[in-house]
Amino acid sequence: MAVNYKKELEAAAKSMIIVHDPEVLMKMIVRMVVYKVRVTHATMLMPNSDKDAYMLTISRGSLSSKVPIGLARMDKDEPLIRLFRDNKNKLVSKNGVVAYGEAKKILKKEKLDNRLRDILKETLHQMDILETVVCIPSYFRNELMSVLLLGRKKNCRKFVQEEINFFVALASNVAMALKNAQLFKELEGELNKRQQLFIRTTIALAVAIEAKDRHTHGHTTRVTNLSVEIAKKIMKNNNLPNDIKFLERLHIASLLHDIGKIGIPEHILNKENTLTKEEKAKIMEHPLIGATILHPISELKECILGVKYHHERYDGAGYPEGLRGDKIPLIASIISVADSFDTMTTYRPYRSILSKEEAKKEIERQSGKQFNPGVTAAFIQLYEEGKI
Amino acid sequence: MAVNYKKELEAAAKSMIIVHDPEVLMKMIVRMVVYKVRVTHATMLMPNSDKDAYMLTISRGSLSSKVPIGLARMDKDEPLIRLFRDNKNKLVSKNGVVAYGEAKKILKKEKLDNRLRDILKETLHQMDILETVVCIPSYFRNELMSVLLLGRKKNCRKFVQEEINFFVALASNVAMALKNAQLFKELEGELNKRQQLFIRTTIALAVAIEAKDRHTHGHTTRVTNLSVEIAKKIMKNNNLPNDIKFLERLHIASLLHDIGKIGIPEHILNKENTLTKEEKAKIMEHPLIGATILHPISELKECILGVKYHHERYDGAGYPEGLRGDKIPLIASIISVADSFDTMTTYRPYRSILSKEEAKKEIERQSGKQFNPGVTAAFIQLYEEGKI
Repeated sequence: MAVNYKKELEAAAKSMIIVHDPEVLMKMIVRMVVYKVRVTHATMLMPNSDKDAYMLTISRGSLSSKVPIGLARMDKDEPLIRLFRDNKNKLVSKNGVVAYGEAKKILKKEKLDNRLRDILKETLHQMDILETVVCIPSYFRNELMSVLLLGRKKNCRKFVQEEINFFVALASNVAMALKNAQLFKELEGELNKRQQLFIRTTIALAVAIEAKDRHTHGHTTRVTNLSVEIAKKIMKNNNLPNDIKFLERLHIASLLHDIGKIGIPEHILNKENTLTKEEKAKIMEHPLIGATILHPISELKECILGVKYHHERYDGAGYPEGLRGDKIPLIASIISVADSFDTMTTYRPYRSILSKEEAKKEIERQSGKQFNPGVTAAFIQLYEEGKI
Repeated sequence: MAVNYKKELEAAAKSMIIVHDPEVLMKMIVRMVVYKVRVTHATMLMPNSDKDAYMLTISRGSLSSKVPIGLARMDKDEPLIRLFRDNKNKLVSKNGVVAYGEAKKILKKEKLDNRLRDILKETLHQMDILETVVCIPSYFRNELMSVLLLGRKKNCRKFVQEEINFFVALASNVAMALKNAQLFKELEGELNKRQQLFIRTTIALAVAIEAKDRHTHGHTTRVTNLSVEIAKKIMKNNNLPNDIKFLERLHIASLLHDIGKIGIPEHILNKENTLTKEEKAKIMEHPLIGATILHPISELKECILGVKYHHERYDGAGYPEGLRGDKIPLIASIISVADSFDTMTTYRPYRSILSKEEAKKEIERQSGKQFNPGVTAAFIQLYEEGKI
């Protein structure tokens, strides 16, 4: 059955443009070429990120004729690469494609520039090793983006002009798609960097604020880690995949859960004796103060719920609003367990320190009273798996 | 001279892929079509962001035959749009292009589906109004991305098949480029959102920390605004364009310049009487404490310089390191002037409040002593322009 190359090309181009991972892109193209043109193998050479070498990213086709895996890298100064990088291939054919047979013929010409003869000879040698009968380069502007190496056709016939034209058009699309994927990758890298910056700055400031309370060293980090572990366990218990968005929000909310302590006078935070009723009331303001500080940041709406309600109790006896049961946002119920466990197991002036085992038992006892039973269950599981 | 459509197409496609602003993209395409194919006008219909209407984004060509500007919007239920959105155009021609003459012929057929006849009639009427002889839709998957409307050729001849083929291939590329631009725009939007989140969270935390010092309400915001204005003025004075990166860093650094006060005991920060030598020494630690808090955040390296050195003096008599003259990073020299001005003009327990005019004179007097003269000059200019 004849292949409708024009149709194939259009379909490929449309898929390519929305694939932003160069590796996936290459796999797609190589697979398509092997499948449609029925060659023994197809291999793609692509520059590595340093652009000092070209990697044989993919090799596909019938096993016996696959390019050896060991040959995974070609230095940018290898003849085959140089031929294309220096645009010498344009001297071999108008469309830039280097076919083994044609190149052999050119070598036989007497009047051939010596440097072209050398590089062409060496390239043919490399094509021999790679069992390659045709090389199709792709350029973006003048930058060599890739070289597609093809083995012979399975029916042993020569490539026809229509096929070569298809490869050339494909190469042009590949160049664009690769450039596009590069640009996307850069933008995504930038996105990632900014997210990191946000998280790190939040951590730095949260830790600085935490330092005002001399009893809570490391508390924020421990609560954050434990909260995230509990959340993952809950998702697993419910046969759900990790909800990345929720985990991100929980991460931020845990980092910021005690941010409101910035509004509590130091002498209360650091008091070694029993607190007076008024002082206790003042400390109990910290979830609301935290929520107020973060209120202007609309993107943190969900996180603020965690900050505001992490001292609510499942039985409704908590603060600031006395919310009950499932009315308490899950994000806050999770932080509540993690926060309580860490508080119980670290030194506080107003009560004695508990062992992990004692604290776990206390949390178990409070399941359905102070704590959400689902969250408690996940916590207990983690504990019993030795992960806390 | 004959146009090499294949070459034009390739060149256009390569440019398109790296243009990520749909508006610019459309301008490029329309300009290219008018220039290469020599039509009286070319117009692009593109969905608006709500996708409830198509906008006549661009109209180009000889003035007399340009599409009237008033006709800037077509509802998504207009016949011309519906014809293409519902893929009814495929019933008119195999490649989806609707040409005026061909469509007229089809209308004359007796055996024509009534709904197709109606929509085609109405479409031709709209093409009349828009002086359009051919419509070329472009699709990404099944989504209508755009319709290119072309006026007649300037030489009044009919479009030939080669031209139509070119339009169809171009439309396919346009669809991809538009989809790609959309994806980029989304990613850029996300990037922008995260940057906003970072800035807003930093502001919220900085303001919360500032609130510990009861004398400095609003100080951070005022210093930040003034710093940025001074920086812009300096750039203008040096005939430089706004250095966005520097302004961003200065913005963050100003927001965080007093972050180290979190490490100073409240009773010192809020003391109404004269500070003891030890208390003064403690307060003078705040730039270093701030730098230490932010130290783990490598992305803030340049900002940290502003935090660390905003109490250095041009004559070398400042702290923490006694840096002198241009050894003091510019970012810190700018914050220094803005910070001093705001401190002088707002209430502090340890000295009397100055009027803006008095504070300005003091800064002028301290030029070359406490302050960098270049920064002082920019500040004075702003003051004299009534901008402070």
